[in-house]
Amino acid sequence: MTDIAAIEAAATRLQGHARVTPMLSSPFLDALAGRRVLVKAECLQHSGAFKYRGARNALAALDPPGVVAFSSGNHAQAVALAARERGVPAVIVMPADAPAIKIANTRALGGQVVLYDRAREDRDAIGARLASEHGYALVKPFDMAEVIAGQGTAGLEIAAQASAEGVSQADVLVPCGGGGLTSGIALALEARAPGMRVRPVEPEGFDDVARALASGQVVPNDRLSGSIFDAIITPQPGNLTWPILQRLCGPGLVVDEAQVLHAMALAHDRLKLVLEPGGAVALAAALAGAGEGDAVIVVASGGNVDRAMTGRALATKT
Amino acid sequence: MTDIAAIEAAATRLQGHARVTPMLSSPFLDALAGRRVLVKAECLQHSGAFKYRGARNALAALDPPGVVAFSSGNHAQAVALAARERGVPAVIVMPADAPAIKIANTRALGGQVVLYDRAREDRDAIGARLASEHGYALVKPFDMAEVIAGQGTAGLEIAAQASAEGVSQADVLVPCGGGGLTSGIALALEARAPGMRVRPVEPEGFDDVARALASGQVVPNDRLSGSIFDAIITPQPGNLTWPILQRLCGPGLVVDEAQVLHAMALAHDRLKLVLEPGGAVALAAALAGAGEGDAVIVVASGGNVDRAMTGRALATKT
Repeated sequence: MTDIAAIEAAATRLQGHARVTPMLSSPFLDALAGRRVLVKAECLQHSGAFKYRGARNALAALDPPGVVAFSSGNHAQAVALAARERGVPAVIVMPADAPAIKIANTRALGGQVVLYDRAREDRDAIGARLASEHGYALVKPFDMAEVIAGQGTAGLEIAAQASAEGVSQADVLVPCGGGGLTSGIALALEARAPGMRVRPVEPEGFDDVARALASGQVVPNDRLSGSIFDAIITPQPGNLTWPILQRLCGPGLVVDEAQVLHAMALAHDRLKLVLEPGGAVALAAALAGAGEGDAVIVVASGGNVDRAMTGRALATKT
Repeated sequence: MTDIAAIEAAATRLQGHARVTPMLSSPFLDALAGRRVLVKAECLQHSGAFKYRGARNALAALDPPGVVAFSSGNHAQAVALAARERGVPAVIVMPADAPAIKIANTRALGGQVVLYDRAREDRDAIGARLASEHGYALVKPFDMAEVIAGQGTAGLEIAAQASAEGVSQADVLVPCGGGGLTSGIALALEARAPGMRVRPVEPEGFDDVARALASGQVVPNDRLSGSIFDAIITPQPGNLTWPILQRLCGPGLVVDEAQVLHAMALAHDRLKLVLEPGGAVALAAALAGAGEGDAVIVVASGGNVDRAMTGRALATKT
């Protein structure tokens, strides 16, 4: 079970490896949101997303002779990088139709990429078979104790950085796919900043967590693709993450594509940060007024976006 | 005179106000440069550029009833922000043809903007007259001891952060206009990281410092405008900065527009940072192979760029 002790242990393992990412702000964003907005810039994490925390922690905790992972994007790059740093091989199962740049990046980081057909093959089965064949550890993208604990180290940093800014009561808005980051941060803040409340943020049409929090029932999303939010369109929360989300999170928030593209453009103008759509949903929610009280904390979870998508965001009206 | 004691005093004044900006890196940039590239991300400083350090230090050291500054961009916004934080009025003299967004931002930060005609009026004379009339302090953009000391605090951080990365010998490439940042960093590193060598980086056609370092003679640039590098096209180094540059800097480096647009695009892809052209010249030089030894340190000095210019950079080929 993941608890604060597991997150503290992860923080020790990550010291000197993961970046302590900065908490940024802009008076212009504060004015738009109607309260202080503190942005935890996880797009500046190694591999361009928070995923490095969980990947590195899992590899350090399990110390396997090699690793297998499945992912179409951020988790793939994070596992490839963490494995290379530890000097063990990484086999990454990716859909054949994943963006070419993400496949190329994963390979450039030393990952051995195995492509599969998203329509006809089961990535879980392929991952499990490869791990068993090689005697490697399977590092799952979110539903794994060591991964949740690693992502939770971002929550320890949020508690300390918000405290340094004089903020102890705030909603903490977190982009939510399978819930690894959200549940990890919620566990860390429960212990270290009990005046804070975590709220998952999802894109319209992929709001499985918001619906589950509202009804108490997990019902998967209808759609599995066809979205600019490729990083966070997981069908439903995990077996490990869901009970944590249900116990600790406030109501979920939902944003639409136009709000997110606008938030990406404002991150460019005001924070000098590059965000991917899935990494900008929490900022979009804050700019739309979400949160209560004097300050709101936003996790900007990733920046692995291609140039065309950034161009699309910058073409939106301010 | 600015020395390490003045820089340490500035660091004390800036504590809790200026951001300790992160030192970032990417294995993809290391591969392109042929050595480790450590990027000091001053675009993440308050107001989007290192200028906040010097502005805030000058205001804290002089404690004036108000402040006057002249600038077409980054210094204007930094002084307006620092003055607002200290609760004193700021009068900012800006050319009437400055980018509308920079004028609007300066006003939004509480600055009282006085426009002048760049072709017919002398901004130094206007600034001096306004300061004298109001009894305000004039905070110059670079040729002022308190400003140099403030910018030097970035050098203290570079020394500590590079040491934490195991780097004690390296060229430190710094975007150079009037030389306030470059001279401040050079003084800090002389005292705290004597194995490092500062090298100013300028755009083609505005290489007054590189020429002066090579010949020992300061000869102003021919052109004063017509460049995408608005932040760093000062005609020549200052009376205070030049002797420091001459004593401490290695040979200057010069980059062209295409190299800088390419560096901006790679900062987007690999660092998730938004850089303005003047803030990207040192990264461009490193990617072109500048520096010696195992590692090179690059200052990414600012990110106040409009969306169209970012779009232009992203349209360059990788």
